[in-house]
Amino acid sequence: MSRSCLAVILAAGDSTRMKSSMSKVLHPIGGRPMIAHVMAAVAKAGVSDAALVVGRDAEAVAKAGMVAGIEPKTFLQTERLGTGHAVLAAKEAIAGGYDDILIGYGDVPLITPQTFSAAREKLAEGADVVVIGFHTDRPFGYGRLLVEDGELVAIREEKDATDEERKVTWCNSGLMAVDGRKALSLLQQIGNKNVKGEYYLTDLVEIARSGGGKVVAVDAPEAELAGCNNRAELAALERVWQERRRHELMVSGVSMIAPETVFLSYDTEIGQDALIEPNVVFGPGVTVEGGAVIHAFSHIEGAYVSAGATIGPFARLRPGADLAAGSKVGNFCEVKNAKVGEGAKVNHLTYIGDASVGAHSNIGAGTITCNYDGVNKHVTEIGSNAFIGSNSSLVAPVSIGDGAYIASGSVITENVPPEALAFGRARQEVKPERAKVIRERALALKAAKKAQK
Amino acid sequence: MSRSCLAVILAAGDSTRMKSSMSKVLHPIGGRPMIAHVMAAVAKAGVSDAALVVGRDAEAVAKAGMVAGIEPKTFLQTERLGTGHAVLAAKEAIAGGYDDILIGYGDVPLITPQTFSAAREKLAEGADVVVIGFHTDRPFGYGRLLVEDGELVAIREEKDATDEERKVTWCNSGLMAVDGRKALSLLQQIGNKNVKGEYYLTDLVEIARSGGGKVVAVDAPEAELAGCNNRAELAALERVWQERRRHELMVSGVSMIAPETVFLSYDTEIGQDALIEPNVVFGPGVTVEGGAVIHAFSHIEGAYVSAGATIGPFARLRPGADLAAGSKVGNFCEVKNAKVGEGAKVNHLTYIGDASVGAHSNIGAGTITCNYDGVNKHVTEIGSNAFIGSNSSLVAPVSIGDGAYIASGSVITENVPPEALAFGRARQEVKPERAKVIRERALALKAAKKAQK
Amino acid sequence: MSRSCLAVILAAGDSTRMKSSMSKVLHPIGGRPMIAHVMAAVAKAGVSDAALVVGRDAEAVAKAGMVAGIEPKTFLQTERLGTGHAVLAAKEAIAGGYDDILIGYGDVPLITPQTFSAAREKLAEGADVVVIGFHTDRPFGYGRLLVEDGELVAIREEKDATDEERKVTWCNSGLMAVDGRKALSLLQQIGNKNVKGEYYLTDLVEIARSGGGKVVAVDAPEAELAGCNNRAELAALERVWQERRRHELMVSGVSMIAPETVFLSYDTEIGQDALIEPNVVFGPGVTVEGGAVIHAFSHIEGAYVSAGATIGPFARLRPGADLAAGSKVGNFCEVKNAKVGEGAKVNHLTYIGDASVGAHSNIGAGTITCNYDGVNKHVTEIGSNAFIGSNSSLVAPVSIGDGAYIASGSVITENVPPEALAFGRARQEVKPERAKVIRERALALKAAKKAQK
Repeated sequence: MSRSCLAVILAAGDSTRMKSSMSKVLHPIGGRPMIAHVMAAVAKAGVSDAALVVGRDAEAVAKAGMVAGIEPKTFLQTERLGTGHAVLAAKEAIAGGYDDILIGYGDVPLITPQTFSAAREKLAEGADVVVIGFHTDRPFGYGRLLVEDGELVAIREEKDATDEERKVTWCNSGLMAVDGRKALSLLQQIGNKNVKGEYYLTDLVEIARSGGGKVVAVDAPEAELAGCNNRAELAALERVWQERRRHELMVSGVSMIAPETVFLSYDTEIGQDALIEPNVVFGPGVTVEGGAVIHAFSHIEGAYVSAGATIGPFARLRPGADLAAGSKVGNFCEVKNAKVGEGAKVNHLTYIGDASVGAHSNIGAGTITCNYDGVNKHVTEIGSNAFIGSNSSLVAPVSIGDGAYIASGSVITENVPPEALAFGRARQEVKPERAKVIRERALALKAAKKAQK
Repeated sequence: MSRSCLAVILAAGDSTRMKSSMSKVLHPIGGRPMIAHVMAAVAKAGVSDAALVVGRDAEAVAKAGMVAGIEPKTFLQTERLGTGHAVLAAKEAIAGGYDDILIGYGDVPLITPQTFSAAREKLAEGADVVVIGFHTDRPFGYGRLLVEDGELVAIREEKDATDEERKVTWCNSGLMAVDGRKALSLLQQIGNKNVKGEYYLTDLVEIARSGGGKVVAVDAPEAELAGCNNRAELAALERVWQERRRHELMVSGVSMIAPETVFLSYDTEIGQDALIEPNVVFGPGVTVEGGAVIHAFSHIEGAYVSAGATIGPFARLRPGADLAAGSKVGNFCEVKNAKVGEGAKVNHLTYIGDASVGAHSNIGAGTITCNYDGVNKHVTEIGSNAFIGSNSSLVAPVSIGDGAYIASGSVITENVPPEALAFGRARQEVKPERAKVIRERALALKAAKKAQK
Repeated sequence: MSRSCLAVILAAGDSTRMKSSMSKVLHPIGGRPMIAHVMAAVAKAGVSDAALVVGRDAEAVAKAGMVAGIEPKTFLQTERLGTGHAVLAAKEAIAGGYDDILIGYGDVPLITPQTFSAAREKLAEGADVVVIGFHTDRPFGYGRLLVEDGELVAIREEKDATDEERKVTWCNSGLMAVDGRKALSLLQQIGNKNVKGEYYLTDLVEIARSGGGKVVAVDAPEAELAGCNNRAELAALERVWQERRRHELMVSGVSMIAPETVFLSYDTEIGQDALIEPNVVFGPGVTVEGGAVIHAFSHIEGAYVSAGATIGPFARLRPGADLAAGSKVGNFCEVKNAKVGEGAKVNHLTYIGDASVGAHSNIGAGTITCNYDGVNKHVTEIGSNAFIGSNSSLVAPVSIGDGAYIASGSVITENVPPEALAFGRARQEVKPERAKVIRERALALKAAKKAQK
């Protein structure tokens, strides 16, 4: 689309009912702030510039709104005098000579690019104002969209509607698109001669029409237009978003046994024929290639899982985990900032951090890479085809050569050459019949403690 | 409320369909027995004494019913001759000269204090009998509440109702409030001249009215009045209870990404701006201060989590876990009967039991406090700013001084002074080219085993 | 039932929308392929032989269909010319002289034996063709079942229906039963003179009736007859199946706090008074005896859990785990191919593989059975009343005698006699004031790294 477009996003809404120390639009859905979702939608609808009308946390909101290369400007709304007044807080931006202006809300984050694009298309076809509407079973309280001959003739508020008009189920969402050349003039004509003394954006319909302009409405699914006033409603938005994204992945060929227990982030990518078992949480930054298997109770963030890799159950992949084809990270294992090579196995109760594990190496149960000295992080390098015996501690910085063998229960503090055997453990000693002595001592202690009480 | 009040709770219902070795009313919702929920509701409605009509497990039911300082008396119902007969099992208590008597059911646990209070208020206003009703879309089978001039004139059973009466959607829940001075006399007038030969509590309506008394009905949401006859219905009650409690917490300022995966106990307290990720289970006795973060897959019981602390994912806090501000208990870590000091970190694969960890100490991955000798539990004390190297075993009783440093993989059996370095591990040895020998031996063994088959 | 019966299962349906490298009917529900569910249903309805009409993966589909002793034959459908044509791919089997023939679909897996049996009963009573129908609120698009005097007179397709007929809500599922002696003749009369030029199985109704035969319909719940065309629909089928199975278990006396978070396999068996907490996944091959407790976040497959045993939270039981009465496997513990004796405890961060643990033994936190040498698996045998100190490594093959005591942090490589004390750990050394030196060195390194940047 070659028409220029500015998005004005109202993000100053009062957060009182959120009971939060943070601006409402910074609360996340799918792992990113609501405002970022709105920005991603307008970006895909061809918007290049954005004005965010904020009430607090201006810097944080602007930063969160930096999506897809757009660097939004913020405008502070100091008084709460209605939506019409709020939009005019961005007067300077609106005066920028855009072809189209989209008006969205920071707390209406499920809106899709398709809806914004449909509204912009109407502007391109000659409309001056485009109202985004939705059909609902429960229209009570919403302004009804009254249409004649394809034009929107009025938004009728509940209290002003006739019985006939109240039966209309097409309602005003509050979202709009306005001809960018006329927007400022139209907005400045909004008055406040009403009971509350507020400036209502919906007055644009009458103002545009009385000036001979054309006003139309476009439709969007009700679910896209849901807002958020408290954390229960935030959770409801999250649910809709998750269901939408899960469905997209499933119809693209991802198997989920219980999709309602899989939690995705906004940027989660999963390939065809991957299997996601119940109870998997994806934090941001995850790519799972096709054919990988993520078993139940896995928690994955900032990780790359190659084709044919198997994760979990009970696996945790943290940022920088990079799993090669056919590798395996099993239960109660954590991998952070580490490459796990082709066919390598990290199967039980293991911590691999700041490390690399070569192809086809086997890391025994209970292995720990000791990567931290209290101040710095150090690196562990394990070659290919190495065998790390169970319950070993690899004290970084340290490297284990290809094909090396670490005896179970060893503490490894120095590099081990390829094909070498290393051990670092005490020789076993046995004291016959001594268990009885220990037990008797322990029982005596117990009796003594009891006597003390 | 200065009026005295007795609650008579029918808790003798047959549990056959529960298929349980335990009385139905002892089955839990939100981590406590159904009977305790009912008792908590009557207590908040101003009840001071309670009579539990039981059929079995009398002692256990009475104990479970001890809530908010009420010490309920139990009365054994030996025959099953209807609800009217059941209530009279508590005749001795009913004769106690109370102003108000509330009649509830041990297997109707979602009832709120508001509903009982509304019923008591009607008694205070002069009603003799108050029936608690509910509106439903599916009235079939329930007794319909027939109201004239604000008074309840009859409870019409399905089989006796006219077509017009069957359209009534306000139904009898079975719960009631009765004037305490008249209750015994009214109850004793209930007869059993009906098809089943049973004494029906609902007859009170006609009895009171025929004696010139006033009968009214109050309304309660249908969900409050659901009962429970098998374990599927028990799970349905649990779900309603969980949804109710989650919603209360969310609107008070607690964030839950997926509330339907968070399981609360009756006494779970969570402060404003705390974040609860998906899949968290709260056992009894947990307080989470505002601003704490509970990551996914955490299981917490009997624990205190201070502001700014971070738990999980995959963390388990057991009774006596007491986490100071800004501390962290990470994945595959268990903390039991232990204080974790301000800013201290217990991040990976660690067991901390019967211990204290000082402020800003760092507990390396795989650390175990060896607190059990087979008979007694012993204490581990770790000072502040200490560093416990990964995979260490701290054999209790033992204390680690402030600022001490334990080398990775050490077994620590004796106290370590402040600022000291301690290690207890064998020196590493390396046998060049020996890995190959081990592998060849292992392969030979494999071949031999195969040959044996 | 003494009548012989063949099941013809259409399993060649195009899987394009599944976006899968595997035939649609091999996708699992409750842990086994859809085709196996259909076969289990026909088997319980008395079927002894089955013909699977397949389009690809013939061998795998036949193998998956081997259920309850039936060895299905596969027939390749090479052209897609309609359901009538598809059934005739199994002509050879149909000609086998059966009394009854059932026609099912490999991607309609929730069908119950009761429904197939009801259809067969109608054949036994003299019907030639029996159509399986379902009542639905959304009949649009389905063929309507038109019934007169108890006989099915037509299946009216949407496009051919009158307004009156469109109001019929009883619809054709596509599943049928046909008199085995007449089936081949009836099927061969199906023509393809229609718009699409396809052979429609539904034509059997008219064909049978025009030959003087009797056609009737039987009813089944809509949920049984749902099909599956993409992975979102597969997940929907899984959900229905899980809900059905959970409900069966709950009403039989199993407690589930949050049944919607418990995932069962087709063969999961759980006894009365067992408690299943939220978030438990059962893989195939699990039996849980009555009175056992499975805590939250447990993952169990191929395991036997005896009465009074306690599992989890965060426990993983893998194939061959066999837990005796009153034993306990706690958090972050994995048990594989191992017996855990009566009252034995494996409570924290432990791996028990290829092992046996005797009665009343206590396995300390962080214990690892080192069962793998890189090539072979070896066995660990622990006697009864033994005490394995925390963080020990038991290097298999090794045996620990009854009543033996292993000191914490030991590496055990040789057998330990009964009642003996064994240790294999280095003596602790302490370097006073050395922690400071280490810290200073680490800080200097950090500064040097920073300077390099």
